[in-house]
Amino acid sequence: MKGVRVGICGCGTVGTGVARLLTENRELIESRLGVRLILAKVADIDTETDRGMRFESGVFVSDARAVVEDPQIDIIVEMIGGKGFAKELILNALNRGKHVVTANKALLADFGDEIFAAASGKGVDLAYEASVGGCMPIIKTLRESLVGNRIRSMTGILNGTCNYILSRITEAGVDFQTALAEAQRCGYAEADPTLDVEGFDTAHKLAIINALAYGMRINLPDIYVEGISKITPLDIALAREFGYTIKLLAISKDRGDSVEARVHPTMITLSNPLSNVSANLNAITVAGDAVGDMMLYGFGAGMMPTASAVVGDIVDIARNMVSNSAGRVPLLAYQEKSLRPLPVMPMDQIVTNYYIRFAALDRPGVLSKISGILGDLSISIKSVHQKGRRSETAVPVVMLTHTAKEADVKSAISRICELDIIRDAPTLIRMEDANGDDPDMDIS
Amino acid sequence: MKGVRVGICGCGTVGTGVARLLTENRELIESRLGVRLILAKVADIDTETDRGMRFESGVFVSDARAVVEDPQIDIIVEMIGGKGFAKELILNALNRGKHVVTANKALLADFGDEIFAAASGKGVDLAYEASVGGCMPIIKTLRESLVGNRIRSMTGILNGTCNYILSRITEAGVDFQTALAEAQRCGYAEADPTLDVEGFDTAHKLAIINALAYGMRINLPDIYVEGISKITPLDIALAREFGYTIKLLAISKDRGDSVEARVHPTMITLSNPLSNVSANLNAITVAGDAVGDMMLYGFGAGMMPTASAVVGDIVDIARNMVSNSAGRVPLLAYQEKSLRPLPVMPMDQIVTNYYIRFAALDRPGVLSKISGILGDLSISIKSVHQKGRRSETAVPVVMLTHTAKEADVKSAISRICELDIIRDAPTLIRMEDANGDDPDMDIS
Repeated sequence: MKGVRVGICGCGTVGTGVARLLTENRELIESRLGVRLILAKVADIDTETDRGMRFESGVFVSDARAVVEDPQIDIIVEMIGGKGFAKELILNALNRGKHVVTANKALLADFGDEIFAAASGKGVDLAYEASVGGCMPIIKTLRESLVGNRIRSMTGILNGTCNYILSRITEAGVDFQTALAEAQRCGYAEADPTLDVEGFDTAHKLAIINALAYGMRINLPDIYVEGISKITPLDIALAREFGYTIKLLAISKDRGDSVEARVHPTMITLSNPLSNVSANLNAITVAGDAVGDMMLYGFGAGMMPTASAVVGDIVDIARNMVSNSAGRVPLLAYQEKSLRPLPVMPMDQIVTNYYIRFAALDRPGVLSKISGILGDLSISIKSVHQKGRRSETAVPVVMLTHTAKEADVKSAISRICELDIIRDAPTLIRMEDANGDDPDMDIS
Repeated sequence: MKGVRVGICGCGTVGTGVARLLTENRELIESRLGVRLILAKVADIDTETDRGMRFESGVFVSDARAVVEDPQIDIIVEMIGGKGFAKELILNALNRGKHVVTANKALLADFGDEIFAAASGKGVDLAYEASVGGCMPIIKTLRESLVGNRIRSMTGILNGTCNYILSRITEAGVDFQTALAEAQRCGYAEADPTLDVEGFDTAHKLAIINALAYGMRINLPDIYVEGISKITPLDIALAREFGYTIKLLAISKDRGDSVEARVHPTMITLSNPLSNVSANLNAITVAGDAVGDMMLYGFGAGMMPTASAVVGDIVDIARNMVSNSAGRVPLLAYQEKSLRPLPVMPMDQIVTNYYIRFAALDRPGVLSKISGILGDLSISIKSVHQKGRRSETAVPVVMLTHTAKEADVKSAISRICELDIIRDAPTLIRMEDANGDDPDMDIS
């Protein structure tokens, strides 16, 4: 084989990074792969912006469709994003028997069934390491390294924007809007940050890795999603006081005949390795029946870290081409006939520990009323904390519960909110690894 | 293909774990791989010990050589350890055209050239993920995920025994011998702990990953090795006081025309993610030119975590068999013709920060004499600390240096030791990420 010809569609930040890496490390990559990766075409409608690198003559073009339809090109790297043109290009490439690399989690989370079916039907490879966790090799780890393991759970910090914002609120005590504005100034958050801060990007990633871990279909709509925009410095300070930090986590757990799959701000103990993941970094812990707990940690986004993952995928596919072994690893980790219709557990049924903060008037009997309602619903209280005393305005009252069912906690909260001593909507934050969850400490 | 037949040679802890995993998760593995892995033979001279599992009739045998020579068996899993019989079996298997999986880092570090040449000559696969870092997929990450990166450095905690012992000295303030005895009681240290505590096991692992990272030959003899047996609770307490912890690290750095490769106790700042790696866990950070810094973290040893890595290797090879693509990834990450004779930098030439503790008599002029010698050799002192005052016996005097050359530091120490105010041999601990290394703070 003379070389493998690569076409990049979309030359924004990551697309440029991929072009740069393929160019700057060309000899190095060839010394590992054994054949040359040829950067045949790079397409972007913006042909003006300086990408800080020189393309060989004829390589940079404006028409991505022509790149996909170029019979000389073996691997299409989709770096356009979005679910319109990107989807059309990917399906077009797959249907032409070309292999595809993408980092487009939103597209895979929404249209994975259709796209993977197209790849599978043509017997071509579709690689997407960069779609989850940037440079952390979570896709390869789940599809290959952990192949002998029944995956028990995964817990991930998969969105650098949210982690940066929560870290800033934690370190500097600023409010969400200030931290968001900072993240935008540093280039860690988009002008419209909704996809990131409301947890949707994390949910896209969770939908993908859940499929790989459990052999289920990609199931985005059933994932519970709650973002970080309501997290206050007060809650973070209180969490710290109790020995916790707040992170936006993607959580999935094997529950036998269903899977928990949820994205929400979560209190974790300071001894949890995820609590040390700072700034815009990503990390994921995976628990398997053989492997125990393992963790991957690194940059979840950014030009060159993401390009590193994309180039890893390109080389993987090139190796399959060289050895004529496309489809060597099943696209979604499991043989297609083994995929199971594994449902996501309804959020109401999950059982965890809760932090609930009420704003209550400081009147005699407040605690008795609140804890009475919790007791009626069999929710055991681990500790209660009233912060300060004021005669007229409400004070924060925080309850940490033992493990309780989400539905019961929700019922209790709505009944508590009807009490005339309660002001404002309460804040509920789930706790993932509540320490000292000792029945003896039950004070309710 | 009807199935892939696996023979395990050596049914100790990890061999038993592999047999268990292949048996208990057989259906799961088949649902991912697409063909069945058949546990055809398990050989061990000890046929009496109860392995806690039932083998099918005829599977468990006493003669490992017969397993290797059984023409029905496709993949030999060498779980015997040592460099004698294990080496003979592996070479025998490779020469018969069988693929081999091993976790035997000592063997690969010493005889890798011969063994990899045999595999390469026969065009068969030799997989060894479990040889470094147990369940952490560092081999796959270096060979595959980071294929687009020039590796800049690697820093690893690769020996659970040492990490357990250092963690115990740190947490409980016990001395080395007490912590070692504890580790032995817990099963984290062998009866003869030399290989672990003197750093040799870590050096074996570093020799392997260096080859993968830089495309050099496995070069064990040139790696500098210093163990943890001389680390005292006093040094750990002083380290803590200065904001550091002490870990046994494998350190490698790309220096252009050479590579630093060294294993020694190292002071790292508490903000370094490796400082949080506790008990018998392993972790490794890899810096690449594209990926930035990434880290893998997990169990470096133990029955099932190691078995998980071995089964990952077995499945990788089975996938190559199914798709007829043996040798799809070069055995040592680089094409053979690209391997470079990259030398290891002599230890005398490395430049780093140093912690040096002297036992000195508390006499006027002590600091002036010591710092005068350091100054003569152009070693800048960052801070000096004298602990306590005593009239007759020696007190600890600690110096933290700015970056200095190892050869100069060694010369200075030997000259300082000739002073009549110095008692006992000084303690030297290298510092890997000295924070606040600010020239303004130079007090020498």
